[in-house]
Amino acid sequence: MGVKLAHNQYGKAETRVVRVYRDADPHELVDYNVSVALSGDFDDIHLKGDNANCLTTDATKNTVNAFAKEHGDAARQPESFGLALARHFVDDVPPVERARIKLEMYPWIRLSSGGSPHPHAFRRDGGYVRTATVTYTDGQVWVVSGVRDLVLLKTTDSEFHGFYRDRYTTLAPTRDRVMATSVTAQWWHDGHEAAWADSFDTALATMSETFAGHHSLGLQQTMFEMGAQMIAGQPGINEVRFSLPNKHHFVIDLSPFGLDNPNEVFHADDRPYGLIEGTIRRDDAPEPGLAFDPGMGW
Amino acid sequence: MGVKLAHNQYGKAETRVVRVYRDADPHELVDYNVSVALSGDFDDIHLKGDNANCLTTDATKNTVNAFAKEHGDAARQPESFGLALARHFVDDVPPVERARIKLEMYPWIRLSSGGSPHPHAFRRDGGYVRTATVTYTDGQVWVVSGVRDLVLLKTTDSEFHGFYRDRYTTLAPTRDRVMATSVTAQWWHDGHEAAWADSFDTALATMSETFAGHHSLGLQQTMFEMGAQMIAGQPGINEVRFSLPNKHHFVIDLSPFGLDNPNEVFHADDRPYGLIEGTIRRDDAPEPGLAFDPGMGW
Amino acid sequence: MGVKLAHNQYGKAETRVVRVYRDADPHELVDYNVSVALSGDFDDIHLKGDNANCLTTDATKNTVNAFAKEHGDAARQPESFGLALARHFVDDVPPVERARIKLEMYPWIRLSSGGSPHPHAFRRDGGYVRTATVTYTDGQVWVVSGVRDLVLLKTTDSEFHGFYRDRYTTLAPTRDRVMATSVTAQWWHDGHEAAWADSFDTALATMSETFAGHHSLGLQQTMFEMGAQMIAGQPGINEVRFSLPNKHHFVIDLSPFGLDNPNEVFHADDRPYGLIEGTIRRDDAPEPGLAFDPGMGW
Amino acid sequence: MGVKLAHNQYGKAETRVVRVYRDADPHELVDYNVSVALSGDFDDIHLKGDNANCLTTDATKNTVNAFAKEHGDAARQPESFGLALARHFVDDVPPVERARIKLEMYPWIRLSSGGSPHPHAFRRDGGYVRTATVTYTDGQVWVVSGVRDLVLLKTTDSEFHGFYRDRYTTLAPTRDRVMATSVTAQWWHDGHEAAWADSFDTALATMSETFAGHHSLGLQQTMFEMGAQMIAGQPGINEVRFSLPNKHHFVIDLSPFGLDNPNEVFHADDRPYGLIEGTIRRDDAPEPGLAFDPGMGW
Repeated sequence: MGVKLAHNQYGKAETRVVRVYRDADPHELVDYNVSVALSGDFDDIHLKGDNANCLTTDATKNTVNAFAKEHGDAARQPESFGLALARHFVDDVPPVERARIKLEMYPWIRLSSGGSPHPHAFRRDGGYVRTATVTYTDGQVWVVSGVRDLVLLKTTDSEFHGFYRDRYTTLAPTRDRVMATSVTAQWWHDGHEAAWADSFDTALATMSETFAGHHSLGLQQTMFEMGAQMIAGQPGINEVRFSLPNKHHFVIDLSPFGLDNPNEVFHADDRPYGLIEGTIRRDDAPEPGLAFDPGMGW
Repeated sequence: MGVKLAHNQYGKAETRVVRVYRDADPHELVDYNVSVALSGDFDDIHLKGDNANCLTTDATKNTVNAFAKEHGDAARQPESFGLALARHFVDDVPPVERARIKLEMYPWIRLSSGGSPHPHAFRRDGGYVRTATVTYTDGQVWVVSGVRDLVLLKTTDSEFHGFYRDRYTTLAPTRDRVMATSVTAQWWHDGHEAAWADSFDTALATMSETFAGHHSLGLQQTMFEMGAQMIAGQPGINEVRFSLPNKHHFVIDLSPFGLDNPNEVFHADDRPYGLIEGTIRRDDAPEPGLAFDPGMGW
Repeated sequence: MGVKLAHNQYGKAETRVVRVYRDADPHELVDYNVSVALSGDFDDIHLKGDNANCLTTDATKNTVNAFAKEHGDAARQPESFGLALARHFVDDVPPVERARIKLEMYPWIRLSSGGSPHPHAFRRDGGYVRTATVTYTDGQVWVVSGVRDLVLLKTTDSEFHGFYRDRYTTLAPTRDRVMATSVTAQWWHDGHEAAWADSFDTALATMSETFAGHHSLGLQQTMFEMGAQMIAGQPGINEVRFSLPNKHHFVIDLSPFGLDNPNEVFHADDRPYGLIEGTIRRDDAPEPGLAFDPGMGW
Repeated sequence: MGVKLAHNQYGKAETRVVRVYRDADPHELVDYNVSVALSGDFDDIHLKGDNANCLTTDATKNTVNAFAKEHGDAARQPESFGLALARHFVDDVPPVERARIKLEMYPWIRLSSGGSPHPHAFRRDGGYVRTATVTYTDGQVWVVSGVRDLVLLKTTDSEFHGFYRDRYTTLAPTRDRVMATSVTAQWWHDGHEAAWADSFDTALATMSETFAGHHSLGLQQTMFEMGAQMIAGQPGINEVRFSLPNKHHFVIDLSPFGLDNPNEVFHADDRPYGLIEGTIRRDDAPEPGLAFDPGMGW
């Protein structure tokens, strides 16, 4: 009985590169965490220890850093930075057949000084991380934008009742609860050219406003509405995928202390949490192919 | 232009249940983190806020906890615990069509007392986390065992040279380096019955011994050998998947201080790191289907 | 030879309580992580297992939750919430002689809806965590406000040269570098009444603006200036303590790729990092006593 | 009104150095995370930006790395490594008056190969982290050894009742509960010479065996007993300090599902947790001075 090598990929993960645009006045900066995963003609590397086709992970790191300078305009947005890198690895390095570039971008806010925007000082905005994943192979390209760690909460306008009951169901239905989540979302674009910054800002605003404005009968329903509005607002989006932990805020029973608690005092619980995940697609969207393929990354 | 709901799943994630077997002498315990993801006839939940088919995530948590008592024998191993839960959700809850149960199991070591094993006191073994993922739908079941956070290191017997060179390659080849990784591995079993504890112990020992004994020309080659030996040793394994960060230990240049450094002093770096991922399959293994399907979990 | 019990303290740590002010229009909320540490007449608990003087940690948690309702006005600011709790434990629970309440407060930003502030939907501001520590014993009270995880960066206006050189010094002096830090700061107030929200906002603005505006010859110098300006702007501050990691941004050598790099592309390194810590005091400030005493909390 | 500089310290934190002893057969290795904090004649650095007395944090990192080679024997144990470094900074660098070296040491277990110990392959033991803190100033030295992340649990032999009751007390007394904690402990040695490895092993064994064997009426009582036994077993220990989170394991009410639960199924909760901290001293121990002084490190 023998064994064989199936899907494999490799590259440098989490290269933390910061690009400052100093010729601009005021200075601008972008702050990335870039992970590269390459697939291709790599069997001999695994089977024989023959590294002749192995572009070193060190070289993929160097490439990311060099491209931040050589392709400074592309590097201003994660989607275009990813595209430039993916195309380079597949088109310029013969053994590479597929590249998947995953980028995290950390937003910064310009500080003020005496009431005016400061020309070169910044504060990190910890409110979310912007993400992008670009996959390129065989002339096809998939561009996925995303966000994570966007924490939203509403203090009312959220119900949950009428649910299925089995032997293990003890939850009480409610007509008014706190609903909170930490949004992880990814959306796949039709094509690979867009005004990426505007597109991201619009997507973020649509998600947040829909969450705020939707009278919710369940986090699933709110999730669907968020995705539907994102596609309605940007027809260039083929598909949106969400992973939404239900960050439970439990009403604390204060009656042992002679106090009532009309949805005022809550325990913000850590674990376990409901995890609501789903895909919303445009009716006529093509199949996503490798757009969301995680490769081997569990 | 309309939108539609595509793949979706939900359930309670990270239920932290500990089961003590007190009728045993000495006491035994198992320590789990269980995540449930259910798919099925859930369109109206998302589209209309009609929760009639919605088994609450709270009930899935209750089920996990109750099964730790009701199915105490199954709960002794993550694979059998996952099987019991997956079958229950699909077979007993009509709207549920697919269940994916992901378990982390934290190992504990019995303490000693005066040289003898203590009957009821334990120390957590932080050396690794054992994992299992069970997926069940339409009469089919996939059982995947795994491990994460198993950190291995060898101080020699590792080379890396003869690699591809492009414009961005600056790495020097080496005939002797430290090689270290934190193993994440998952392996899919043929069938759904095995002596799970023995199987896991054998897999862990094979991985570790192969890493130790293999003269490495690259982490990819060592990874392939680890998987090949696992399948050779346990023919009931269809496929092994690895995700191996190359935990770089860089030789520090001590020459500015008048010191040589013949591979004795290293900087253990955090980021970036090479990430080597791959699949090793038995020649005649069937297609993995949903075995490794991450669902929506990025 | 005998042993004895010396300093000890206990209580419930990390109670995660959220208070919603629903009678307000729009809704308001505060989000806390509260840790209680009590000292007092507790010898018999330790020496004999006699718990007659032991207020349970569970009761300290209940107290925190109940006070969020009973003392809703105090709970609007961490300093006043901590004061109410500290006084209660010492004044109302006879065995307790000293209380130290440590609070983290997570800021939230109101979402907008159609251009107007939304009445009950929020986004978590991940830009910093506000902190407070209140210590009370024997009629004396110390109120310390603080912040952590405030990440600041400037792309220029930072030099570092003229430093001491020993055998192990290899660093090149620089006239222009990126300077970045993640601010942990604590400042001790004279007295225990202040407009806490305004005071915090002023302190945060002063720190940020000073960091931005100061032409730096070293992070130590900038730190001192930040503290000095805080005290100058708020004479009610006795003392400021900083813990400032120097988040190194190393200029990447791109010359192997035929590229220059005039401070444009940086590696944001994780570890190791310089850690700069210091205290700035008002000339006539009293001794801080227990203000900053960490108790046993390493 | 003026301000002044009070206590300050700086240095490189978290230098991750690994030393391999390759001339040994089999190979041996030590794995450290070293943080240096220096105090001294540093006023002008802060007040004037005059760095003439500033040993760079980069040089302190270089020193740590170089000493791993130059003082290879000392580097085998964290206490002796810290002593060598502390003495160097104070004795050899004129502006430095006080040094505090904090070390974390990650233990590794030798792998086996065909039943024998492997000569150069290891697995990281995640069961605890060994620590040491050495402080040196003015001819005086304090050596503190420690451990963190040592997770202990007993399934019975733990009671908690007879406690103080106030208006906010709702906890039910119990005669039988699971008790679990993650030990952080530090102990200060009389003098600065000892068989450090043996001393640490003895301390760890005493803590674990005492936890296992003690019939507990409360975590405070068990903590005291652990400290008392450590000092009884090693009279060279002046003082032990513990920080013990009470890792709550709550019995789950399974009665809604028609199941009893005689202390068999538990929820392992994350937050909040009781935090029990205390000091146990030898009767005739001197005052600890700077032994446990955290400096500015919150």
